Amino acid sequence: MRKQENCIFCKIATGEIPTKMVWEDDNIVAFHDLNPQADYHVLLVPKHHSESILTLAEDEEGQTVIGQLLQAVLKVAKILGLTDSGFRLIINCGPGAGQTVMHLHIHMLAGRDLNENLV
Amino acid sequence: MRKQENCIFCKIATGEIPTKMVWEDDNIVAFHDLNPQADYHVLLVPKHHSESILTLAEDEEGQTVIGQLLQAVLKVAKILGLTDSGFRLIINCGPGAGQTVMHLHIHMLAGRDLNENLV
Repeated sequence: MRKQENCIFCKIATGEIPTKMVWEDDNIVAFHDLNPQADYHVLLVPKHHSESILTLAEDEEGQTVIGQLLQAVLKVAKILGLTDSGFRLIINCGPGAGQTVMHLHIHMLAGRDLNENLV
Repeated sequence: MRKQENCIFCKIATGEIPTKMVWEDDNIVAFHDLNPQADYHVLLVPKHHSESILTLAEDEEGQTVIGQLLQAVLKVAKILGLTDSGFRLIINCGPGAGQTVMHLHIHMLAGRDLNENLV
């Protein structure tokens, strides 16, 4: 599993930086965003460091990690009670699209402010 | 590969309904959204019918399909020339989160209007 020095999400993955954790296993951490943009705003982060969804797609671990993320979405949705009400997943790829931490992460958003506008 | 009658995305997948196609292989279709919400707005759709990201996570084909979607993101980003400028991926799960077609799909958005606001 790849780590990168000075990566804030790698430090969260190892527990070096504490967070409001929602769920964790050997491969994924899920925690509440510090600046929530909806009633629920959780970040799902693979412990394996990959810069973005594009680098993951070219990473030999990519298939495994994306499968782990899929299962993590299901687990976190159940923990938060969102399987019926629904939620939005967002992955920003690149600073030009709003990616502020260059370690792949999925935003899971839910709550009263979601609508059909995507941008 | 599962199909569902009267599903608009299953009909696009089989070619029964024509679209402005960006890319297609045996498993995935990617086409321009009819009502774009950004300069680029492409939908990536697995040909295998699964209602949402949650049903996919519980589907025995789930790991395979999510891996195919990951590779499709890379291919479409290259075709559209978005690998450097970046893009946003959005998956809505459930009508309450803005999912309007109950066949799993990923929105790929890019262009001048993207910023750090997610909702």
